[in-house]
Amino acid sequence: MAKRKPMRTDIAWSTTDSITVKGLDVCKDILGKVSLGDMAFLELTDRLPTPQESIVFNAIAVCLVEHGLTPSALVTRLTISGAPEAMQAAVGAGLCGLGSVFVGSMEDAARLLQQAMPVPDPQADIAALARAIVDRQVAAGASVPGIGHHIHKPVDPRAPALFAIARAHGFDGPYLALMNAVAEEAGRRLGKNLPCNATGAIAAVACELGLPWEIVRGIGVMARAIGLVAHVLEELRNPLAREMKTLVEEMATAHFRPAT
Amino acid sequence: MAKRKPMRTDIAWSTTDSITVKGLDVCKDILGKVSLGDMAFLELTDRLPTPQESIVFNAIAVCLVEHGLTPSALVTRLTISGAPEAMQAAVGAGLCGLGSVFVGSMEDAARLLQQAMPVPDPQADIAALARAIVDRQVAAGASVPGIGHHIHKPVDPRAPALFAIARAHGFDGPYLALMNAVAEEAGRRLGKNLPCNATGAIAAVACELGLPWEIVRGIGVMARAIGLVAHVLEELRNPLAREMKTLVEEMATAHFRPAT
Amino acid sequence: MAKRKPMRTDIAWSTTDSITVKGLDVCKDILGKVSLGDMAFLELTDRLPTPQESIVFNAIAVCLVEHGLTPSALVTRLTISGAPEAMQAAVGAGLCGLGSVFVGSMEDAARLLQQAMPVPDPQADIAALARAIVDRQVAAGASVPGIGHHIHKPVDPRAPALFAIARAHGFDGPYLALMNAVAEEAGRRLGKNLPCNATGAIAAVACELGLPWEIVRGIGVMARAIGLVAHVLEELRNPLAREMKTLVEEMATAHFRPAT
Amino acid sequence: MAKRKPMRTDIAWSTTDSITVKGLDVCKDILGKVSLGDMAFLELTDRLPTPQESIVFNAIAVCLVEHGLTPSALVTRLTISGAPEAMQAAVGAGLCGLGSVFVGSMEDAARLLQQAMPVPDPQADIAALARAIVDRQVAAGASVPGIGHHIHKPVDPRAPALFAIARAHGFDGPYLALMNAVAEEAGRRLGKNLPCNATGAIAAVACELGLPWEIVRGIGVMARAIGLVAHVLEELRNPLAREMKTLVEEMATAHFRPAT
Repeated sequence: MAKRKPMRTDIAWSTTDSITVKGLDVCKDILGKVSLGDMAFLELTDRLPTPQESIVFNAIAVCLVEHGLTPSALVTRLTISGAPEAMQAAVGAGLCGLGSVFVGSMEDAARLLQQAMPVPDPQADIAALARAIVDRQVAAGASVPGIGHHIHKPVDPRAPALFAIARAHGFDGPYLALMNAVAEEAGRRLGKNLPCNATGAIAAVACELGLPWEIVRGIGVMARAIGLVAHVLEELRNPLAREMKTLVEEMATAHFRPAT
Repeated sequence: MAKRKPMRTDIAWSTTDSITVKGLDVCKDILGKVSLGDMAFLELTDRLPTPQESIVFNAIAVCLVEHGLTPSALVTRLTISGAPEAMQAAVGAGLCGLGSVFVGSMEDAARLLQQAMPVPDPQADIAALARAIVDRQVAAGASVPGIGHHIHKPVDPRAPALFAIARAHGFDGPYLALMNAVAEEAGRRLGKNLPCNATGAIAAVACELGLPWEIVRGIGVMARAIGLVAHVLEELRNPLAREMKTLVEEMATAHFRPAT
Repeated sequence: MAKRKPMRTDIAWSTTDSITVKGLDVCKDILGKVSLGDMAFLELTDRLPTPQESIVFNAIAVCLVEHGLTPSALVTRLTISGAPEAMQAAVGAGLCGLGSVFVGSMEDAARLLQQAMPVPDPQADIAALARAIVDRQVAAGASVPGIGHHIHKPVDPRAPALFAIARAHGFDGPYLALMNAVAEEAGRRLGKNLPCNATGAIAAVACELGLPWEIVRGIGVMARAIGLVAHVLEELRNPLAREMKTLVEEMATAHFRPAT
Repeated sequence: MAKRKPMRTDIAWSTTDSITVKGLDVCKDILGKVSLGDMAFLELTDRLPTPQESIVFNAIAVCLVEHGLTPSALVTRLTISGAPEAMQAAVGAGLCGLGSVFVGSMEDAARLLQQAMPVPDPQADIAALARAIVDRQVAAGASVPGIGHHIHKPVDPRAPALFAIARAHGFDGPYLALMNAVAEEAGRRLGKNLPCNATGAIAAVACELGLPWEIVRGIGVMARAIGLVAHVLEELRNPLAREMKTLVEEMATAHFRPAT
C-alpha cells in the first residue's frame, strides 16, 4: 500500500461529552446564543459576525430564500410528486439547477468587483474601474451581471433596500460605489436604464462584508434550500406539478397528434 | 385539450415594483428585519415567530447544521472533487442521503409523539403513553428513535442543552415530558441507560413549537445545506476526498490482488 | 481506534495491466463482445445472459428508456437551463423523481408477484393467487399496480408486445399468467376493463427472468438515465424549460395580480 | 399574459394506441429488435446504428459502465446507506460527480480533436495538428487530456482494445491517428511515455463515429448509471459505506482528540 497523505478536517470534532464546531463548543457557545444566519456566517468565515455584520449578512441571505416558482422550485415540486417519500432528494434535485445562469450571475458580479479591486480601496478611481469592467465584458461578448431586470422596472426594489441596509450599518464602501458605477456605465453604453438588481446588490454587499467571491454562490445554495422545503410542503398540500406536466406535454406534442 | 385544473401557489408573487412572500412585502417587512432562521420559520409555518419561538426554533435548526464528516459531508466532498464547477450539485447530492436512517429518526420520533398525543394535553398520562409507544415499537421489531448515542455517553450533551433552552423560553410542555418518559421506559425495558439524544430532543422541542411532524425532516434538510457549503469550501482548500477514495479502494480490493 | 470491520467489493478490481468486472476480463471478455444491455444484465445478476434472456431483458430495459415529457424529463430540462455546465447533475436530478409513484409501481407489481409465488410454480392455482393479491390490495385501500392506463385505451400496446417477445423466447411461465390474472380479477372487481400495462408487463417479465423484485426499480433508473441524456441534448438545441417556467408562473400567480 | 413562444419536443409522443420515439413505433420497430445500446445510439443521434457502428458504440459505452470504487460509486453507497428507500436518488447523487475532472477529460479530448479537425480529413497533416494541440495546452498551462494513467502502466489496456475494435469495424480514420499522435507528441515534450488511455481512446472513437463532442459526456453519464445500480445492490447486501465513514472520521479528526 502506498504511503498515505493525511486526511484532516478542521470544521467539527467531538469527544464523548462535547461537540466543537469551528472552535466553539456547540452546547456552551452556540445553542440558544447563535441564530441560524449567524451560524451560516460562522460556517463560511470561521468566526461569528459582529451585530452590524449579522444584520447585513442575514439580509442578503434572506433575500435569496424565496423567489417563487423558479425552475428550481418546479424541479423540487416535480420530484416530490414522483418520490413523496424522499423530500431530501426533491430539495437536492432543486439545488442542482442553481448554476451559472441564475445564481452564477451573482457570483460573476462579485468576481468582477473583486478582480477589479482586490481589496477595498477608498482612493480608487471608481469610474475608471467601472469603465474597464464594462469594456472587458463588451469585448468578450458577455453581458454585465447584476444589472437590469425583466420584470421589475424601472428598478428591482430589493437593490435599493439592500443598499440602504448596508449603508445604515456601516457598509457604505467602494464596492457599493463600484457596482452602481458599473450599472450606470453599462446603461450609458447600451442607451438603456439598467440599474443594479438584487443580484448585483447582493454581490456588492457580500464584497463589503469581505466574503471571497468563491463563497457567494454558496450563500444562494444554502438560502434556497430553505425556500425549496417550503415548496415541498405546498406541493404536498396543494399540488401543481402533475397539472403542469400534463399541460406542457399536451402543448409540446400536440402538433404531432392526428385530429380527433 | 382536456379541461385544465387550476395551478396555484400562495408562497410568493410579484408586481413590477414589489415582491411578496407569505403575505409580507420583502422590501418593507422582511429585509433587514427578519433573520435567516426566522425566515425559515415563516416559510414553514406561514407566520413570523414570537421572540421566544425564534430562540427555540433557531436553536434546533442550528443544532442540525454541522455534524462533521457525516456520510452527507463525504458525498458533498467526493462530488465537488469530480465536479468543482458545480458546487450546487455537490450540496444537492449531499442532501440526498438525509433519508430514513439519519434525519428520518428525528421525523420518526416527532411522529410517534404526535400520534400518541395529537394536541398537547397537560392532563395526559405521560407514563402510560410512553409505555404504549415503547410497546408498539418493540412489538413491531423497531427501535425507539431519539434515544441513546454510540459516541456521546452517558448522554448526548445537546439534549439537555436544548431542553434547557426550551424550558427557559416557555416550552416546557407535555411533549418534552413524553419524550423523556419514552427514553426512560425504553432504558428500563432494555436494561440500559438510553437517555434522549439530540434527535429526540429536537423532535420533542419541534412538537412543543407546534410544528407538524411532516415538517421536521425539512428542518434537517435546510440546516444541513448550510453545513454542506462549509464542507465544499474546506474540500476546495484542503481536500481529503481523493485520499479517502484511494484508501478505500485499496482496502476493499486488496484481497484480490496478486502479490507484487 | 476501534477495531475495523473489513471493507470489500466484488464488483471490480484491477492490476497494472488488467481490469476485471464481475470476474470477467474487461479487455478480453467484454469489450466488443458484450452489448450495453448485456453488460447491464451482468451488473445486476453477476453473469451474462443467454441469447434468449438477452433479447427479453433488452426489451424491458429499452421499454423504460424514453417516455417523453415525464416529470423526470422536465426536471432534467429545467436543471440544464440553469446549469448548462453540469449535464451530469441535470440527469442526476431527473432520476431523483423515479420514486414510489412512477417507477415504484413496477417494483410493487414485481414484489406482489414474487411474494405470492416465491419461486415459479407451474402447478400453482393462478386464479386463487390473483384473487388473494387483489383482496389484499383492496383491503389495504391500495391500488393494484401494473394495470390500466390513463391514455392508452383500451390497452397499453407495450404490454402485449412485451408478452409476445417473452413468449417467443421461452419465458411464458406462471408469472405472466399471474400478472394477467391479477388484471382480470381487478377489472372484474371494479367493473372496468383494466388490462395489464407496460409497468405490469415489465414486472411479470422480470419475474420470469428470475430478477429479484428489489432489482426492478434499478432497471428503470439505468434505462431512464439514457433517455434523460436525450432530453438534455434537445433542451440545449431547442429549449422549452424557460417558456414552461414563465407559463406556469403566470398561470399560478395571476390571481394575485392587480388588473393592469 | 405575454405572447407565448411555442414549446415543442420531437423525441416522443403517443396516441391512444401507439407510442413513437425518434420517429420509430416503439411496439413495432423497437421492442425486441433494438438492444439497449442501440437505443442509446438512437436517443443520441436520431437514427439506429449500422451493425458496425453498433459494435463500436456499444464497446465505448460498455467501457464506461464500471470503474469500481470511484468517487461516484462511493457517493451512491454513502447515500443509499442513509436513504435506503430512495435508490433513484443514490444513483442520481452518484452521477453529480461526473464533472470536469473525470468524465470531463473525455469530453475535453473529443473537443480538442474536433476543434483541430472539424470534419475527418484523410489528407490532414496529423503530426502538425498534434503539435498544435499540445502547444496550445502547454501554453495555457493545461494538461493534455486522454493520455497516461496513474495505475495502468506502461499502457491502459482498454485503449489498444478499443482501437482494435474500431479498426476491425471500419473506423480507422484520422481521429484515431490524431489522438495517438497527440499522445506521442505530449510524451516527447514531457520526456515520458504517455500513451493514450481509455478516456482518449473513447474520445477518438466517438469522433470516428461522428458524435459531436458535446454528446460525449452524456455517454459517460448514461453508462455509469448502470454501474451505480450495481453498487447500490452490493451496498445493500454487503455494505461498506458506514465502515468507510467511521474510518475517515477517525483518521481526519484524531489529531484533535485528547489522549485517552
